[in-house]
Amino acid sequence: MLTGLQAIVLAAGKSSRFKTKRTKLVEKICGQEMVLYTTKLLESLAIPTAVVVGYQKDLVTAAITHAHDERVAFIEQEEQRGTGHAIICSQHHWTQDHILILNGDVPLLTARIIEELYQKHCASQAAISFVVAHNSEPLHSYGRVITADGRIEIVEAKEFTGDAHEHCCINAGVYIASRAFLEQSISNITLNEKAQEFYITDLVKIASEKQLPVCTTVAPFDRIRGVNTFQELWAVEQITRAELIKYWMSEGIRFTAAQNVHIDLGVTIGSGSVIGCGAHLLGNTRIGTDCTVHAFSIIESSIVGDNCTIESHSIVKRSILGNDVQVGPFAHLCEQVTAEDHSIIGNFVEVKRSRIGEYTKAKHLSYIGDTTVGSQVNIGAGTIVCNYDGSTKHHTVIADQAYIGSNNSIVAPVSIGKGAFTAAGSVITDDVPDLALAIARARQVNKHLYAERMQSKRAHVSTKEHTETDATSFICAIRTDSEIESLE
Amino acid sequence: MLTGLQAIVLAAGKSSRFKTKRTKLVEKICGQEMVLYTTKLLESLAIPTAVVVGYQKDLVTAAITHAHDERVAFIEQEEQRGTGHAIICSQHHWTQDHILILNGDVPLLTARIIEELYQKHCASQAAISFVVAHNSEPLHSYGRVITADGRIEIVEAKEFTGDAHEHCCINAGVYIASRAFLEQSISNITLNEKAQEFYITDLVKIASEKQLPVCTTVAPFDRIRGVNTFQELWAVEQITRAELIKYWMSEGIRFTAAQNVHIDLGVTIGSGSVIGCGAHLLGNTRIGTDCTVHAFSIIESSIVGDNCTIESHSIVKRSILGNDVQVGPFAHLCEQVTAEDHSIIGNFVEVKRSRIGEYTKAKHLSYIGDTTVGSQVNIGAGTIVCNYDGSTKHHTVIADQAYIGSNNSIVAPVSIGKGAFTAAGSVITDDVPDLALAIARARQVNKHLYAERMQSKRAHVSTKEHTETDATSFICAIRTDSEIESLE
Amino acid sequence: MLTGLQAIVLAAGKSSRFKTKRTKLVEKICGQEMVLYTTKLLESLAIPTAVVVGYQKDLVTAAITHAHDERVAFIEQEEQRGTGHAIICSQHHWTQDHILILNGDVPLLTARIIEELYQKHCASQAAISFVVAHNSEPLHSYGRVITADGRIEIVEAKEFTGDAHEHCCINAGVYIASRAFLEQSISNITLNEKAQEFYITDLVKIASEKQLPVCTTVAPFDRIRGVNTFQELWAVEQITRAELIKYWMSEGIRFTAAQNVHIDLGVTIGSGSVIGCGAHLLGNTRIGTDCTVHAFSIIESSIVGDNCTIESHSIVKRSILGNDVQVGPFAHLCEQVTAEDHSIIGNFVEVKRSRIGEYTKAKHLSYIGDTTVGSQVNIGAGTIVCNYDGSTKHHTVIADQAYIGSNNSIVAPVSIGKGAFTAAGSVITDDVPDLALAIARARQVNKHLYAERMQSKRAHVSTKEHTETDATSFICAIRTDSEIESLE
Repeated sequence: MLTGLQAIVLAAGKSSRFKTKRTKLVEKICGQEMVLYTTKLLESLAIPTAVVVGYQKDLVTAAITHAHDERVAFIEQEEQRGTGHAIICSQHHWTQDHILILNGDVPLLTARIIEELYQKHCASQAAISFVVAHNSEPLHSYGRVITADGRIEIVEAKEFTGDAHEHCCINAGVYIASRAFLEQSISNITLNEKAQEFYITDLVKIASEKQLPVCTTVAPFDRIRGVNTFQELWAVEQITRAELIKYWMSEGIRFTAAQNVHIDLGVTIGSGSVIGCGAHLLGNTRIGTDCTVHAFSIIESSIVGDNCTIESHSIVKRSILGNDVQVGPFAHLCEQVTAEDHSIIGNFVEVKRSRIGEYTKAKHLSYIGDTTVGSQVNIGAGTIVCNYDGSTKHHTVIADQAYIGSNNSIVAPVSIGKGAFTAAGSVITDDVPDLALAIARARQVNKHLYAERMQSKRAHVSTKEHTETDATSFICAIRTDSEIESLE
Repeated sequence: MLTGLQAIVLAAGKSSRFKTKRTKLVEKICGQEMVLYTTKLLESLAIPTAVVVGYQKDLVTAAITHAHDERVAFIEQEEQRGTGHAIICSQHHWTQDHILILNGDVPLLTARIIEELYQKHCASQAAISFVVAHNSEPLHSYGRVITADGRIEIVEAKEFTGDAHEHCCINAGVYIASRAFLEQSISNITLNEKAQEFYITDLVKIASEKQLPVCTTVAPFDRIRGVNTFQELWAVEQITRAELIKYWMSEGIRFTAAQNVHIDLGVTIGSGSVIGCGAHLLGNTRIGTDCTVHAFSIIESSIVGDNCTIESHSIVKRSILGNDVQVGPFAHLCEQVTAEDHSIIGNFVEVKRSRIGEYTKAKHLSYIGDTTVGSQVNIGAGTIVCNYDGSTKHHTVIADQAYIGSNNSIVAPVSIGKGAFTAAGSVITDDVPDLALAIARARQVNKHLYAERMQSKRAHVSTKEHTETDATSFICAIRTDSEIESLE
Repeated sequence: MLTGLQAIVLAAGKSSRFKTKRTKLVEKICGQEMVLYTTKLLESLAIPTAVVVGYQKDLVTAAITHAHDERVAFIEQEEQRGTGHAIICSQHHWTQDHILILNGDVPLLTARIIEELYQKHCASQAAISFVVAHNSEPLHSYGRVITADGRIEIVEAKEFTGDAHEHCCINAGVYIASRAFLEQSISNITLNEKAQEFYITDLVKIASEKQLPVCTTVAPFDRIRGVNTFQELWAVEQITRAELIKYWMSEGIRFTAAQNVHIDLGVTIGSGSVIGCGAHLLGNTRIGTDCTVHAFSIIESSIVGDNCTIESHSIVKRSILGNDVQVGPFAHLCEQVTAEDHSIIGNFVEVKRSRIGEYTKAKHLSYIGDTTVGSQVNIGAGTIVCNYDGSTKHHTVIADQAYIGSNNSIVAPVSIGKGAFTAAGSVITDDVPDLALAIARARQVNKHLYAERMQSKRAHVSTKEHTETDATSFICAIRTDSEIESLE
């Protein structure tokens, strides 16, 4: 534990370079809001934390409170007048001997870097210590650390005019200051006239000028990447994603095209599972062992049992799958679906707020909503459950071993009994008792040689010219039943 | 403006290394034909341009004329006898003091390179000037620039036998020659016996031998990449794509997996929008602000308003979406669809040549073709509009606030009145007046205990052996209505 | 031919680092089991081969026998006691003068490396020769080759404690030993106490200590990559995939996003074809010339003729397509589908075990199973073939030029005659004669001003509050036909 240390997280800035009119701090990286990478890291180190909020503070505090309840304090910075000003605003929160100050937009920072900085800071009894990294590209987001004549200074990026190769040591924006030094020096931070901002980096200069010990620790550049633009966000997310995938590879998960997969931080996957090209595993999804998620499928906030197959181009959201369940291809489990063991949901099938029993199958072109389907039920191809009624949604119950014929319309609320079945093409509006057959369709009539009457019309249609318009013309011509009768 | 300069673009070659029997010059890179990268660049610099065409000249001239109308001239090279021969063919087009000669397969060239070359050319009063770059790989597509004893020479790639590391200076194929020099020297280009071609590079040798000033300017290799193979095309398209995505990132667009997205040159995107993994934005598509295009969706030549959501796995082509429209997942807006504000087109729904009014919804498994749908209409799940009739396609009109029941067949031409509604499972062949209910389905009959008759047959079906064939057997057994009657 | 050489492939290991409880040797890389890369390479060199199997030997022998019939011998290593022990087990198989020993998990090895090793081995009359490569990363899977005082030794990775930069020469695990030396030395391999394994690398030490000639040849690291983890598998598959795509590019295939495409080893593609982003070409699929496979489509074990278009988001499995066939988008050819020339299978259509004749179209939301469809047939939108009946599946026949109306249910077994047609919304249960019209639907009835009765209820529904529940309430309210009658 890092005794004597408290943290101030700077999260009040305007995110203007994102150009989205939204604070960047709640942009999600692998499913987690950016600022939570920092607050959760601090919580894992048991460092008491206060977050300085300002711009769109409601969004930022909501995200943090959702993750940490009341365990993180908030400090309001009403005007955004720079990092130095943010620290000034935080004064009345200083209770520990040392204050860790860091930005809320450095999501790849590790516990080890903070521990090392604190250890060095204490060992050298520094007034202020900070993390540096090395990068010789002309970056616009990092101050440059200039050392000369025993003095150390941080030149803000926008004021830096030197050669980035020569001055490749950059400021990561992670500081530990002794509270005593802070209390002494805070009032000496001066307004930068050009930027009309107070810079926290002044503190380093102040300490250096007073010849107080200033200490630094070096971190890899990748770990201290800040996120000021969408390009930087992309880089950080790529790193996070790659680390997640490497981790799951080491846990026995095969990725057929690892570079094209998206996995959120909260996801777990059982060993022996295979994740296809382009698959998205989102939110707190849990995938069991020996599952296969085929290409281009998206699973969000769902639980998938063992030995399940999610065929390609499928979507499963906020749903629960048992073991040995097959889904897809082209299936859509919309929300609140429970698919029990050995059930099958096939292609062009949408299921919503429904329970699908064991060994039940709905394999083709169906819509099942607000329905409780028993076990060993077969839902025929083209079945539509009509589930809405006025202000409340109505429920359909299909009991065990029932057989729903193809192309049925099931008008809710309705019950189909155990072992009952319905004929193909039926519109089911009344309950069907157990073991009964329901039929609701017209009898077929063949009108003989009807087509001959159009023969002359058809004669001139050659194979090559045969187009869709011809193809359907004769059916559509018979638009009303009375027309048909008139032909007889 | 680059006064005194005219351009000859070489676009007559055979593209033999593409092996497609099509000229490479009309292959599209980020949605724009390769040769247009050159002609548009020249037009932006106001340089009068003539294009030497030969192989599949109709395709090349059509593409250029489509983009430039009559503003680009064409020169026909009937036989493809090399770059030198192409220049010979262009003689009667020389009107300016200096002639810029360049290949039509160098799409990443920039205005700055041409400007710099021309400036140096003029300043040094060179007979001929050309662009070079550095690459020490043994490339097959670039001549090597050899300087020795004050002389400069370009050795064609296929004649070069030296060490690419030693001779890493390559010829980009972009020349400016003074017209006076050209007129003097053009007849001195000699046929290369081995290749049976005239090489434009001879001109450099001729100038050098006459001790006339020859001038070069250096460009980054990436900018002068030529496209002779599909691998080179891929490299060039990757660079173009990356530049487009970086640009849109800087304009406030979030890409969740930038490396997997395809954006065409003509696309615009409003700030605050999010583009998912694998999304394709093609043609002249315009996306509004604060939209989300989810993973694996394809939008082509369409206009999308503000605040729209295109769910995953959707296709929108040649269509117009208002604001706050929701599409998908698994939706297909085929062509000529107008979806007005707040409309919703859901999963497994195809819409074609139709207008969908405000607040109208078609959420599940439907086909809507040649239909004008009013506002606040609900299209039930499984609805099919039968839109073709003989030689012409017929139109369907569904007025405001109408309600189409599930699984309806709407046989065009037909009108459904304002506030009218149709019962689930109906086949609508006649117009429905305003506020009327249309019903066109059979009454349901339950045949009690019908299933008992098969009980013995079913008894032996165990859970494990329960297969699809069993599941549907009983429904299918009842194939004709007379069979059902016989059961009673 | 490499006379006098036989091969022993080590394929008995436990694959414990994969954590899948499956032998890694049958994991597929670009569609081919890993171990077959080695056995097929050896077969191409006509080297008699025996494979040492142990862990999950049934899986390994099955894969090899399937590919090589009886041409590869198997040696069982009952206990997995290390590579040295595997060689001991192989003793009774030694018949040639030289024994090539290699691991079954080095799939990128080339003929050239083996030929070069054998040539050097023979030329230097070495006791034992082996392949080395250079890599200065601290790899966990490769022994380090240490040379000192004229002696050569391989230190196993887990025993290596030195600096990988200094000792960057690694052992590829590919050896040729003279049989005489092997017979002499095999009993001198000693049990490594720590690992409780016999190491084959002891042989190098033994030869070196006896001052017998030991010979090495250097290979690029990429070629000798071993596969011990899923991360290593990914790297090897990326290399294989890239090589395949580069090859097909050089054969005239355009890949719109080459880095996102998956192609199996057994696939062939005709020139002029275009393969879209995310496309998967699997198994022994053959694609003709001038085809386009659009984004996110998957073609497995299928034959596609010339000039076909597979639109995006489509799946074609175990099927045969003629020329000029159009499939998709969102089409699913499940298995055993034959789609003849010029046929069209459109969006949200599933076809299974069926033949689709020339110029036949099924364009929207249909399921066609176990059906023989003639030529020039039009299958209307929303058509469902109900193909199962009891224990056997029943067949449907739809003859040439038939026209199936929209939203039909076709209950198999049933025949629809030549030129016959069926009205929209029909349930076809009886055969339809040639040229007949079949109609099986109810007559439409309009209940006038029915909606007025709900007028007051509807009045309060404002535009903004207009939700789906309202939209369908009135239809659903009319649940039974008797209710409708009661309204009159």
